[in-house]
Amino acid sequence: MTKPLRLGIAGLGTVGVGVIKIIQNKLSLLKARTGKQILISAVTAKSKTKDRGIDLSSYQWERDPVSLANREDIDVFIELIGGHEGAAKEAVEIAISKGKNVVTANKALLAHHGHELALKAEENGSILRFEAAVAGGIPVIKSLSEGLAGNSINRIMGVMNGTCNYILTRMESSGLSYEEVFSEANELGYLEADPNLDIGGIDAAHKLSILSSIAFGTEINFNGVELDGIDKITINDIHQAADMGFRIKLLGVSQMTSSGLEQRMSPCLVPTRSPLGQLEGGTNMIVIEGDQVGQIVLRGAGAGEGPTASAVVSDIIDIARGISLATFGQPAKTLKKASSSKSQTPAPYYLRMLLHDEPGALAKITKILSQFNVSIDRMRQYGHEDENAPVLIVTHEIKHEDLMTAIQELPNTQVLKAQPLAIRIEAV
Amino acid sequence: MTKPLRLGIAGLGTVGVGVIKIIQNKLSLLKARTGKQILISAVTAKSKTKDRGIDLSSYQWERDPVSLANREDIDVFIELIGGHEGAAKEAVEIAISKGKNVVTANKALLAHHGHELALKAEENGSILRFEAAVAGGIPVIKSLSEGLAGNSINRIMGVMNGTCNYILTRMESSGLSYEEVFSEANELGYLEADPNLDIGGIDAAHKLSILSSIAFGTEINFNGVELDGIDKITINDIHQAADMGFRIKLLGVSQMTSSGLEQRMSPCLVPTRSPLGQLEGGTNMIVIEGDQVGQIVLRGAGAGEGPTASAVVSDIIDIARGISLATFGQPAKTLKKASSSKSQTPAPYYLRMLLHDEPGALAKITKILSQFNVSIDRMRQYGHEDENAPVLIVTHEIKHEDLMTAIQELPNTQVLKAQPLAIRIEAV
Repeated sequence: MTKPLRLGIAGLGTVGVGVIKIIQNKLSLLKARTGKQILISAVTAKSKTKDRGIDLSSYQWERDPVSLANREDIDVFIELIGGHEGAAKEAVEIAISKGKNVVTANKALLAHHGHELALKAEENGSILRFEAAVAGGIPVIKSLSEGLAGNSINRIMGVMNGTCNYILTRMESSGLSYEEVFSEANELGYLEADPNLDIGGIDAAHKLSILSSIAFGTEINFNGVELDGIDKITINDIHQAADMGFRIKLLGVSQMTSSGLEQRMSPCLVPTRSPLGQLEGGTNMIVIEGDQVGQIVLRGAGAGEGPTASAVVSDIIDIARGISLATFGQPAKTLKKASSSKSQTPAPYYLRMLLHDEPGALAKITKILSQFNVSIDRMRQYGHEDENAPVLIVTHEIKHEDLMTAIQELPNTQVLKAQPLAIRIEAV
Repeated sequence: MTKPLRLGIAGLGTVGVGVIKIIQNKLSLLKARTGKQILISAVTAKSKTKDRGIDLSSYQWERDPVSLANREDIDVFIELIGGHEGAAKEAVEIAISKGKNVVTANKALLAHHGHELALKAEENGSILRFEAAVAGGIPVIKSLSEGLAGNSINRIMGVMNGTCNYILTRMESSGLSYEEVFSEANELGYLEADPNLDIGGIDAAHKLSILSSIAFGTEINFNGVELDGIDKITINDIHQAADMGFRIKLLGVSQMTSSGLEQRMSPCLVPTRSPLGQLEGGTNMIVIEGDQVGQIVLRGAGAGEGPTASAVVSDIIDIARGISLATFGQPAKTLKKASSSKSQTPAPYYLRMLLHDEPGALAKITKILSQFNVSIDRMRQYGHEDENAPVLIVTHEIKHEDLMTAIQELPNTQVLKAQPLAIRIEAV
């Protein structure tokens, strides 16, 4: 008789409930696939009495996550509380210090403390797993750290925040403004309590920093992510991008360059006909480029009860099967410091401007751009009824810093009606 | 000091050479990711003297695969010979009988003998891995057997033969006939020595039968795959399908129904705008539908040196890391016999006919169809210059056997100029 695997689950929100449903409803499937009985010893959550639509009566109720992590009768601590400080962090640390295995869906915790947690877990012989932390149900952590481990990774790209992708695709399909769709998403409950986590790109940047660590063998460096949110994107930008064959996505890009690790989470233009360009609504997509395998694209639901629980349970199954590898694919103490680098990789840019409609205005702009090596590929001036002329420029491949310097100079021309907006065009 | 992992590689074609290049060029990456030195003890292939562009001088040369499998100085036998009988099978059996681990890219071997090999491997404590056998570089075996193991799988679909997808998409883009593109593909070296393995759907059916076993916990049942090749598809079919919003793909579908396991590998119509519909050229795509995760789509190169070698090396890395699970995701002796079922799941069909252009011809056809419950959704009669009228029908959801019975009756109408062709429209 093999011993059962005993779980303690902290956090009984959507994901926690989803995990419990799978454990309850798939006893024989899980037994067949792992050779073990997987059982829940104890749970904890803020409210003991709330009706969650599932039967918790056969589990011990623990008063808080830390007490749960301390229990002798659990082998795996499942952290589904969220937040990168407080109870989640404290309980995970205690579980690890007791040599227990930990499964978490907490991208913020990993982005901020993943490296130190991995070091402690590896010292203590604990397994720390987090498939659900990135891209929900898509098995991207496993694909990257195991399935593609024979590759040197060249680049990772991804749409990893379903809410932002919902807002951008909804703007396009409805013609509504950013503000209108934002309110709509808020009413539908799609936004985090702090909406800036979503629309500011922070949540997606947490995920990108985790993928970077695995892909490039570097310590997680969340602060090294160049971050830009979607709140400056107008419905006109979306229409004009479409007009030129592009769609706007909040895109994460991570690549190792000769000057260091470049990590960006920002709105980007991608070709409408590319897999990333075709992504609708809340779906997530990760593109992994390896030197051997070429381009691998993974697509699926990035959030929701079933998909996220599927990922959590896959980690539990791995542990039940005795599958173990280093937290980020190689021992944490061998991960290199990521010398983070401002974007050096040249790219074409989309540059949106509003000019005073006066003779020579455009000439003044293009003169400045050419002074700073910003070479123009295509330009369009749109029809207008007032004295402001909307001008759109697509540049050749240029360096981001050249573009930024040029943009700083542009106001000196006295012909700008508003601050220009530059959006990177990512080759996908 | 951990002991190195010692490989014996049988078969030095494209994939074998690709694997050796990775082992040679990524020593430190593999060491970092596995904690072990991975080294090649010995190799074998038909020709010892052929120039393969790599240095084999530091490896022992073994005279044949069976002798290689017998060597004491290898821990993992890498079978890259191919074929489901003969040397490949014999050598794999010997390696397993000696308790060695085996990595293979051989879908034919697995489709025909995978179950018995898995039984023997599990009796002998050997690991048998085969990521490269399905969809080349896409980590689909790992995603299905590990990453999505918390799901009951509803359906698997996939374009798994790059050559067929190349032929079909090339016909569409060039307007050339099937025969012309077939010759072209042959000259380019895209076809197997026996082209029927590709265009007859056999190679893809091998792969589908492997996925079915993992997805549904059933013994591999290659003979249960309903098989139909792409050689009956005309350029007109492709154009007419496009006209109705569809593209034609050689699509594998596997699903468990109340009457048993349905496995089909056949040309299907899929919506042009779906991920499957948008797949160009030699790329592969697998769609996995789980009850928790919803739809997961995996896309990448299905063949070629780098992608296939990437998959083989991922299996080697798993073994080096001590990762082990049952061959098909649960112990082979617990897999159920798959009671194979003829397609019962209703679907709409595309029905192409050529009629004598005479009064009442179409009425005779539609009468027979309605007698056999083949209900018509859309019908088009195309312009024509001779006395033959091309007619295209899209049916409502119907049972395949009703359609086949109706098609058998149609010649009795005396108005058919040619045998009708029916193509399933798969909901994706």
